[in-house]
Amino acid sequence: MEGAKGEFHHLVLAKFKDEITLDQIDELIKGYANLVNLIPSMKTFHWATNISTENVNGGYTHIFDATFDSAKGIEEYVQHPAHIEFGALMATALDQILVIAYKPTLVNL
Amino acid sequence: MEGAKGEFHHLVLAKFKDEITLDQIDELIKGYANLVNLIPSMKTFHWATNISTENVNGGYTHIFDATFDSAKGIEEYVQHPAHIEFGALMATALDQILVIAYKPTLVNL
Repeated sequence: MEGAKGEFHHLVLAKFKDEITLDQIDELIKGYANLVNLIPSMKTFHWATNISTENVNGGYTHIFDATFDSAKGIEEYVQHPAHIEFGALMATALDQILVIAYKPTLVNL
Repeated sequence: MEGAKGEFHHLVLAKFKDEITLDQIDELIKGYANLVNLIPSMKTFHWATNISTENVNGGYTHIFDATFDSAKGIEEYVQHPAHIEFGALMATALDQILVIAYKPTLVNL
């Protein structure tokens, strides 16, 4: 996640509906990860669960991080039919979603 | 940001109060970055502004990303007096804050 690498992140914070099972979450993660194979500008996909103990996570439990080489690449991803189709499916499983995109800048004092 | 590197992230999403100036934000970013020099478990510090155009950013405009080698390292950071002191200062400048911590897992189908 070095700023020097010019990496852009599209980060989704999510909270699944209570009735969504771990198997269903696993299938959604595979569908999300498969977007790398469908959308040329999407370079990598990572996911994680929140482990913060500070209790200011806003209810979000899952993190999905897609990387790109440029802000334009993020726009291409957002507008790509494969993303729109997957996003609509994902939305049916979620109680909460928050999306940020950014290019991290390293500060080394 | 490879999962294989065993990197743990402590990610803060923030919205500054309207009256906080860019100079004040710059000073706070320097103070945040300086924690790397004060807290042994904190390895790197990156910051960014949100560039998502999807309008589901929850009002958050800034991203602060600190990395660690372990979940224990995050706990040491959270409880470190230098973090507590800086966090109290930062809190006075913020309208909104959200904190998540995670170890990203790469999925490559």
